[in-house]
Amino acid sequence: MLKVIAQDFIRPEFIATVRPLYEELVAKTRLEKDCISYNLYIDQKDPGHFVFIEEWPDRQALDEHCQTEHFRRLVPLIDSYQREAGTFLLMDAF
Amino acid sequence: MLKVIAQDFIRPEFIATVRPLYEELVAKTRLEKDCISYNLYIDQKDPGHFVFIEEWPDRQALDEHCQTEHFRRLVPLIDSYQREAGTFLLMDAF
Repeated sequence: MLKVIAQDFIRPEFIATVRPLYEELVAKTRLEKDCISYNLYIDQKDPGHFVFIEEWPDRQALDEHCQTEHFRRLVPLIDSYQREAGTFLLMDAF
Repeated sequence: MLKVIAQDFIRPEFIATVRPLYEELVAKTRLEKDCISYNLYIDQKDPGHFVFIEEWPDRQALDEHCQTEHFRRLVPLIDSYQREAGTFLLMDAF
């Protein structure tokens, strides 16, 4: 089991622009056969701070997710509206 | 629904010391009537970086968690082994 937290920081004037991109990314990722869970949250103190909490069976499944058409098309587009670089954290269960 | 990410950074020489404290904190928190989920993870790149991913019905439930005997006893004890201050993030669903 691999748990992932991926955080994006979007420029305030583009929050409405990225919403449909995130909606498509979430919907298509959840259809991937190896996706255990893929949920998106918003920081209560910062509406441009988007946080994915993901679960994959292993690193290979995550790598395959990053090679999908929807990931390769949508993530660079979302990133073009960033105010700072995103972060990601790969974790094992305690 | 309230999602929480709480991160702790423990000094390397005390990782074995905090493990049973975390085990007790997780076990007792999961018994709280309003706890939806409470899971602990470890950063694959940093064995002293512990990450809680929590779900509560609302802020009041989280505040009540922070007033429980196990929280008030164990969290300051765990924090005494920190190498830097912990962080927490309160989030709404996208």
